[in-house]
Amino acid sequence: MNKSNGAILILSGPSGCGKSTLLKEVYKDIKDYYFSISTTTRAPRQGEQHGVDYFFVSKEEFEKDIQNNEFLEWARVHDNYYGTSLKPINKALEEGKLVIFDIDVQGHDLVRKSSFNSFVTSVFITTPSLKELENRLNSRATDAKEVIEKRIKNAKVEIQSIDKYDYFLINDDLLLASKQLVSIANSARIKASLYNKQEVITKWMN
Amino acid sequence: MNKSNGAILILSGPSGCGKSTLLKEVYKDIKDYYFSISTTTRAPRQGEQHGVDYFFVSKEEFEKDIQNNEFLEWARVHDNYYGTSLKPINKALEEGKLVIFDIDVQGHDLVRKSSFNSFVTSVFITTPSLKELENRLNSRATDAKEVIEKRIKNAKVEIQSIDKYDYFLINDDLLLASKQLVSIANSARIKASLYNKQEVITKWMN
Repeated sequence: MNKSNGAILILSGPSGCGKSTLLKEVYKDIKDYYFSISTTTRAPRQGEQHGVDYFFVSKEEFEKDIQNNEFLEWARVHDNYYGTSLKPINKALEEGKLVIFDIDVQGHDLVRKSSFNSFVTSVFITTPSLKELENRLNSRATDAKEVIEKRIKNAKVEIQSIDKYDYFLINDDLLLASKQLVSIANSARIKASLYNKQEVITKWMN
Repeated sequence: MNKSNGAILILSGPSGCGKSTLLKEVYKDIKDYYFSISTTTRAPRQGEQHGVDYFFVSKEEFEKDIQNNEFLEWARVHDNYYGTSLKPINKALEEGKLVIFDIDVQGHDLVRKSSFNSFVTSVFITTPSLKELENRLNSRATDAKEVIEKRIKNAKVEIQSIDKYDYFLINDDLLLASKQLVSIANSARIKASLYNKQEVITKWMN
């Protein structure tokens, strides 16, 4: 793999669609990926690690980075900042890695409007049906009723945006879905290699 | 596989880029494909089979099909007609097959302008360099010097259109290239499944 293989894969989809489990399966087959981690000023919770769950930084550092345009996007939620730093993404792309984002429809729109757009392939992942999503969220029994209701409401809104995505993937059979996502990840790399048409032609001619 | 898996994969690239050898390798891994065959009024040459090399039909049949709009495209070359019939393509798509076209840049433009566009994924395949293409054409020693020169001239023109394609694929290492093309073929099917957004959403909601 070399520089020209750098690409971005955006995954969106409702809580409960099984994205995390799917990604674990996909990681067995794809190489040289970088899973994009958010930067935050909130304190680490028990078990959370710097560079794994989040990049934990001070408010001063975060605000300095805002001033230096070092965020792809950022937001202040209550008293804390959350954002996506550009540095690790640029570094991973330069190293020819596949940068994976797990972000919502709004985040997807934002990356599409950024200078990274030429490198992006996006996938909307969901359950076979709304009913199945409800079943999965209820059977996890990890969330309060109101949280589940909010997630289902969000899911109904977010699915209206599937045409903004390159692919729509139903996560029903885990092995089939992971095989499909591996194919999409491979294709994302090949697609991104053409981002500079003139450079490709010049290189081919000489 | 069902109806919703029908998709079209267009392959273009210069004579000598190794498309046929690559396809043979790809066929080991992909299922349910239909390689689009042209229809012609010229007589079969030795060894050519109806339904394998061409659909061989009479002038009367061909002209009747032209009148009934049953060609995606057709042309008269000297005294014979050549064309791409819509029927076998529609049938293959309805059967959920991956329809593969090996056509030039003009043919690609034409399919892109047709009602099939939503189902299309396209790949421009070529050698690692122009020099390598010249070497391959010269070493095949099957073509006259003028034919080789014409092919090289065409290749220089056609590569200017690579940005019209979804993918640009270098056929250097046969196994790598075929693995890449299999990923693209799988992705083409997943992509085509989203062609009717409203139907997908309605199905998911209920």
